[in-house]
Amino acid sequence: MIDPLKSPLLTDLYQLTMLQAYFAHGMNDIAVFEFFVRRLPPNRGFLMAAGLDQALQFLENLHFTEEELDWVRRSGRFSRDFPDQLAKLRFTGDVHAMPEGTLFFADEPILRVTAPIPQAQLVESRIINLLHLQTLVASKAARVVLTAPGKLLVDFGMRRAHGAEAALFAARASYVAGFQGTSNVLAGAEFNIPVFGTMAHSFVQAHDNEELAFEHFARAQPENVTLLIDTYDTEAAARKVTELAPRLKKSGITVKAVRIDSGDLAIHAHNVRRILDEAGLTEIGIFSSGSLDEYALRNLLSHGAPIDGFGVGTAMDTSADAPFLDCAYKLQEYAGRARRKRSEGKATWPGRKQVYRTYDANGVMTGDVLTLENDSPPGETLIQPVMQGGRRVHQPETLEQIRRRAADELRRLPPHLRQLKEAPPYPVTIAQPLRELAMAVDRGVMQN
Amino acid sequence: MIDPLKSPLLTDLYQLTMLQAYFAHGMNDIAVFEFFVRRLPPNRGFLMAAGLDQALQFLENLHFTEEELDWVRRSGRFSRDFPDQLAKLRFTGDVHAMPEGTLFFADEPILRVTAPIPQAQLVESRIINLLHLQTLVASKAARVVLTAPGKLLVDFGMRRAHGAEAALFAARASYVAGFQGTSNVLAGAEFNIPVFGTMAHSFVQAHDNEELAFEHFARAQPENVTLLIDTYDTEAAARKVTELAPRLKKSGITVKAVRIDSGDLAIHAHNVRRILDEAGLTEIGIFSSGSLDEYALRNLLSHGAPIDGFGVGTAMDTSADAPFLDCAYKLQEYAGRARRKRSEGKATWPGRKQVYRTYDANGVMTGDVLTLENDSPPGETLIQPVMQGGRRVHQPETLEQIRRRAADELRRLPPHLRQLKEAPPYPVTIAQPLRELAMAVDRGVMQN
Repeated sequence: MIDPLKSPLLTDLYQLTMLQAYFAHGMNDIAVFEFFVRRLPPNRGFLMAAGLDQALQFLENLHFTEEELDWVRRSGRFSRDFPDQLAKLRFTGDVHAMPEGTLFFADEPILRVTAPIPQAQLVESRIINLLHLQTLVASKAARVVLTAPGKLLVDFGMRRAHGAEAALFAARASYVAGFQGTSNVLAGAEFNIPVFGTMAHSFVQAHDNEELAFEHFARAQPENVTLLIDTYDTEAAARKVTELAPRLKKSGITVKAVRIDSGDLAIHAHNVRRILDEAGLTEIGIFSSGSLDEYALRNLLSHGAPIDGFGVGTAMDTSADAPFLDCAYKLQEYAGRARRKRSEGKATWPGRKQVYRTYDANGVMTGDVLTLENDSPPGETLIQPVMQGGRRVHQPETLEQIRRRAADELRRLPPHLRQLKEAPPYPVTIAQPLRELAMAVDRGVMQN
Repeated sequence: MIDPLKSPLLTDLYQLTMLQAYFAHGMNDIAVFEFFVRRLPPNRGFLMAAGLDQALQFLENLHFTEEELDWVRRSGRFSRDFPDQLAKLRFTGDVHAMPEGTLFFADEPILRVTAPIPQAQLVESRIINLLHLQTLVASKAARVVLTAPGKLLVDFGMRRAHGAEAALFAARASYVAGFQGTSNVLAGAEFNIPVFGTMAHSFVQAHDNEELAFEHFARAQPENVTLLIDTYDTEAAARKVTELAPRLKKSGITVKAVRIDSGDLAIHAHNVRRILDEAGLTEIGIFSSGSLDEYALRNLLSHGAPIDGFGVGTAMDTSADAPFLDCAYKLQEYAGRARRKRSEGKATWPGRKQVYRTYDANGVMTGDVLTLENDSPPGETLIQPVMQGGRRVHQPETLEQIRRRAADELRRLPPHLRQLKEAPPYPVTIAQPLRELAMAVDRGVMQN
């Protein structure tokens, strides 16, 4: 069985076609590709890099299994010696990258691959696929985090994420961005992310009355009782909780929270809070879910809705208001010569690049300079070596390390970008040496 | 290693929590859940069912591996006998469904699960995850197909699809809807979908001049030469093709097509067509790509752009203008009693349902009736038995069978829905017996 999550056949056909051409013509010089986002989506003032660990795992493990080579042979599309060349292929190159959790902007590379061109080319499609998804979701999740400081935030998006891998990576990316956990059990098992859960409407419906459903649930799961109260009538259910909770207390079972998943969440939360408080149940929290995103949270919190935690699902896991990034992985140098694509609207900055970031006295970001690697304007360099000769330079970072960096980064974001308003873009300057190289490359191309 | 694509741990934690409660209280009666879409997204006049084969595979193979049970044990969240109960769990229920490729509308179930409640409950999250994604993409792809009759349509979305499984399933779903193939090699290997590919800008950039890149590519891949001509100057590259193509012809190599990926595609296609035709190269086709969707295709084709084929990528694979469906998998009956969720804005129709569809004399769909399974209004029934006692009733359908059905369905769609305009919704009538059951269930709930 081919493993879709690891297979180098998860690629665009043209990568294999080009590989065969590179092999056929002996083109094996060092290529430099960079991954970057051409422009930010309309609703994004910044992006958060994520997915590097998965990209590096993919490069470390890159090889064709016998079954994969068999498919290449049987396809009838390639030359007879191509499968043997693929069989020997491993990733032996270098990688430079922004660490996960770093904030970045348009045109700034977050990953650079330096390797013989067949290797660097082949990995394009999956590298984009891996970096795009987690960066997309981390960037969305970071907005939710900025909107709801001090609230419990849990990823609830597994069911409508685009497939299994999307669900797993959305849980990881949102945790990186500052969520406290996920409902996705497998993300707990694979990444050790805290897992949260309540109960579903079907559980209530399967009982002939709501009180019995609540009691059954609480007694079967006494450590972690959150009761879903909107299956029929939210306020009536809250009153049932005020009768049930003291009774359960006597059996040593504490109702921790109630969940509201429909209707006007602010109004219901106010009503339910009052009902619980009047019964002296001030310690029972209110958790809310249902079509939530950063806009809904801002709205709820600005109306003072007494909600302690939120399950944020589909809108985050699919990044619904911006479901893709205009990202690319482009050849910037080959055989020691800088290269540049000049297609209309898609021209790239050539050469090996670095991003320098400056901060004010309070540590708030003031601006970036995109320039060549060997330039040295003031500022902190964001792109670091992470892989050399196909091996990682450091141990993989823990998710906790990445989360801390992401939190630091969000603290250092200029205040106007921390809000979800239209705002002037963060200043990224293209340095003169880079502009000059681009012009020099264009003159070279013109001569052809 | 846990396989994320098969693991029952790819679920929401509450499914396990509720399972434990069902086990603890001996609740094992037959539950009926149905999957449906609550309302169509603003830009969709119809949906196309897809993903059933993957959902049935998931049900057939449902079991917990030792490693998964270990995680459940080690998590410390569950009772001591829960892992042993999970170890025995298999899916032994019945499934009814609309065959893949069927068109459907809001409130119409496309899948019904009838099984002991622990089984039927546990599978909720992944069943939604599987049906949602392919239905989403097939519905988007069908719109592209309707816009560009007679054109070659190829899925180019792998790189920005949301992860590996999304890329695979987007290739499958778009093929179901009428695309001729995909760039995704693994989709070719896994589903036997025709695979298409051209060349990338990096290949051109890696050469010191464009002519040499074209020639290298053609000689390494003589059977299938499509040259990418927009890396620097599209019209200049087209003129290079007019010099190269006759020379290659003498070596027995035919240039089949050129690809344009940027700029104003209509203008470039007109210019390039003229350049090729004036050189007598009328047989070289023009293939185009770059941020395409059904709106872009309609615009290009209404301007008479001489383009023979399209690579449609990100916008389709992410269903960018409607990146999720408001879908649900809801309990409609338990222990022989119809059930109904009544949450505000999310009330469901109770009971086991069937959809009856009528057609006019030309075979065009005229309306649907949503009613109870045992009702029998006129029309063709859309929901069929597909699994009994945990085993499929029929062999899995081939993708070719499903494609033929999908094409038939699109032909039978009312003309106003075949266009991409705002149109009155397709008529779906809620039958009286179903309305009466809903009222009866509500009266029952009220008594609690």
